Amino acid sequence: MTREPRRTIAQHADDALALVRPTPTAPVPLDAAVGSVLAADVVSTLDAPPFDASAMDGYAVRSADVAGATTASPVVLRVVGDVAAGDPGGAGPGPGEAVRIMTGAPVPAGADVVVPVERTSTGRFAPGATGGAPTTVAIHDASRRHVRPCGEDVRRGDVVVAAGVVLTARHVSVAAAAGHATVTVHRAPRVAVLSTGSELVAAGTAPGPGRIPDSNSVLLAASARAAGADVVRRGGVGDAAGALVAALDGVLAAFDGAAPDLLVSTGGVSAGAFDVVREVLDGASRAGTPWESAVTDARLVAVGMQPGKPQGLARWRGVPWLALPGNPVSAFVSFELFVRPVLDRLRGVPEPRRALVGRVAGEGWPSPAGREQLVLVRHTAPDGTEVVPAGRAREPRPGETPTHGSGSHRVSALAHADAVAVVPADVTAVEPGDAVRVLLLD
Amino acid sequence: MTREPRRTIAQHADDALALVRPTPTAPVPLDAAVGSVLAADVVSTLDAPPFDASAMDGYAVRSADVAGATTASPVVLRVVGDVAAGDPGGAGPGPGEAVRIMTGAPVPAGADVVVPVERTSTGRFAPGATGGAPTTVAIHDASRRHVRPCGEDVRRGDVVVAAGVVLTARHVSVAAAAGHATVTVHRAPRVAVLSTGSELVAAGTAPGPGRIPDSNSVLLAASARAAGADVVRRGGVGDAAGALVAALDGVLAAFDGAAPDLLVSTGGVSAGAFDVVREVLDGASRAGTPWESAVTDARLVAVGMQPGKPQGLARWRGVPWLALPGNPVSAFVSFELFVRPVLDRLRGVPEPRRALVGRVAGEGWPSPAGREQLVLVRHTAPDGTEVVPAGRAREPRPGETPTHGSGSHRVSALAHADAVAVVPADVTAVEPGDAVRVLLLD
Repeated sequence: MTREPRRTIAQHADDALALVRPTPTAPVPLDAAVGSVLAADVVSTLDAPPFDASAMDGYAVRSADVAGATTASPVVLRVVGDVAAGDPGGAGPGPGEAVRIMTGAPVPAGADVVVPVERTSTGRFAPGATGGAPTTVAIHDASRRHVRPCGEDVRRGDVVVAAGVVLTARHVSVAAAAGHATVTVHRAPRVAVLSTGSELVAAGTAPGPGRIPDSNSVLLAASARAAGADVVRRGGVGDAAGALVAALDGVLAAFDGAAPDLLVSTGGVSAGAFDVVREVLDGASRAGTPWESAVTDARLVAVGMQPGKPQGLARWRGVPWLALPGNPVSAFVSFELFVRPVLDRLRGVPEPRRALVGRVAGEGWPSPAGREQLVLVRHTAPDGTEVVPAGRAREPRPGETPTHGSGSHRVSALAHADAVAVVPADVTAVEPGDAVRVLLLD
Repeated sequence: MTREPRRTIAQHADDALALVRPTPTAPVPLDAAVGSVLAADVVSTLDAPPFDASAMDGYAVRSADVAGATTASPVVLRVVGDVAAGDPGGAGPGPGEAVRIMTGAPVPAGADVVVPVERTSTGRFAPGATGGAPTTVAIHDASRRHVRPCGEDVRRGDVVVAAGVVLTARHVSVAAAAGHATVTVHRAPRVAVLSTGSELVAAGTAPGPGRIPDSNSVLLAASARAAGADVVRRGGVGDAAGALVAALDGVLAAFDGAAPDLLVSTGGVSAGAFDVVREVLDGASRAGTPWESAVTDARLVAVGMQPGKPQGLARWRGVPWLALPGNPVSAFVSFELFVRPVLDRLRGVPEPRRALVGRVAGEGWPSPAGREQLVLVRHTAPDGTEVVPAGRAREPRPGETPTHGSGSHRVSALAHADAVAVVPADVTAVEPGDAVRVLLLD
């Protein structure tokens, strides 16, 4: 009965991905780079350690002097100086001499072994320098070198972090150790989120008769922000073409004049008489609408999925636009299946499609024939492999009829879900114990 | 040889946790709440849906009129009006009448069934209102109600998100749907990170002889920030008590005058002659040091772990202070074992200790007797259970002696690790195929 082309989830995800390319790259300070995608290999400018470094607090000595030292038969050396971490490597011990050395300090010329202070007659160091007072030390054990050779960890020119990773604190600390103050990353995607629907009121406003709170724009804006995007949010655009056109043009200018990389709308794509996104996308193909030149590449498609069947793709004045359905659970699964990979491609993730992982159904549920089913599920144990539908029928109030079904279509299920099960189109029932494939949620 | 008390990892983690309590709570806008810990249950102020709502685009009718309708024997009704999403519920259809209704609109009085437009002679709606022109519709199938009853999803007074969760986009969207513009969360912890060591130069600065880049303060600041903290970072504090005291007092004033919740330092806790944190903590127990009144509860302990044995705990002018060792891998594992749980307690996570999870060693490695060993590891497959040490011996250059061992003590291993294996103190070798327990990294 629909005139739209029918697409699979995978086909529609491909169509959505084809709308975008990675954002430009630029160097950013390490402190600001975590969460961004590295756009160029981090190549070490240094050897690490950059010199032969002491691995212990102790005495730098000549191995020839101390070869046979034991506790019973120690070798006594004259202490001729100190070398602390941060000191330049200087003159070293001559034959029969030792230099006090601290962890991380450069091993002085001539020395090739560090004897830990615990393996000497000194036992432990008092704070502060020796003050040049002549002392001796008895070496009890020099069987290990305790020297980290120059370049042991990294050589100048080594790739220490490879392009394509989502940077963590660990990665940026390695970049610092390799001599860098900045790393080159993709710019954060600029994303405008609009929810449409004359029934919507802003979160926290008491809805009047027939109205409900706008939760979709909150959901998608927060999801995009958590995925690394800079987000502008416009909630509750009314169901009139003029209002939508004005809102779309408004968000084009909302990033300090820079064009957004992506528009994401919810609602208005279904078969209703007031479905405003549909009206605008349809109107683009008819001469004479005020926005006929603004919309290009418009496609309204029926995706073989439940929920989330009606989906739209287009460009608004050249900016890619993903038009999602308005039911909150539909909007959510559409974000995870279609918008998140687009955001990941924008921000430079080399493989933006997330792999499904194998789990086991702890409960059964029915599934529609002919459409892939998306079910909000939760793991029953923190490190477990069993999942169950995240929605729960409420305990019926006195006089109420108990409700049935998985409840995964409910907004409240979003609060409990940590994954989305993707049930193939040919499955009509998931039985307890069945293997299922899920998309893990962040 | 050490005079410090010997503690297990678990004991030291307990001591660290005992230093702090959760931060104060306050309401924050939904857009700013993701990542914070919910401090009070979110209770719905609304029924959801707040009225009997149409689940489809179609016709609201009286069930008595359409009970036996089929395609072969349709029931023809007179269309008397429209109700769009956002319209207040108004007068409904009388007997023999239908009202066009859109998804999400209130079902008008009198109607108790919605017939989807695809199940009628209309097939699909043209955009826009009917304009009041008298029309009829033939109903082909009214076997399902397609009405979402008031309160089906949530009842006013229901707890929709429970205190203690780390808020995601999904949680805040459910809070919006439940009538809220704000949620009550714990304030972000204020954390000051200081790295000590006269050998340290700022990231990106060419280190002179004997110097190395400061990567620890970059690592810990970024880790704390990713864990939800507001962070002030002071890198490369010199190895002199006066410099450390000045740096500690400096960061106390760095949060616009508000006291930090936690100080974290690296370095200076070992047995060297210039170990400045040790000097300050030791000095606190001796009358006459300029800082004797600033340091309280000072403890220098030897934790039975490798790496990371020397650890310090104290309060500086009342602010909890965790003093970590300076080797970068030691500092990192100390953050994960001791600092992260403290941050989680500060920000209100009810159970701040992270559970270890079971994995299988894909390679073997030696482990010291008598100390728990922390090994940076990586998973060999994205959804797999096999882990191997994350450090790799570099290919030796011509003329170099190949290095041995897991390499997990190397800074560069931080770039490859996605977990830390915790090997019990009584294990001296992990063999390929052994079960190991790991701490998963973010």
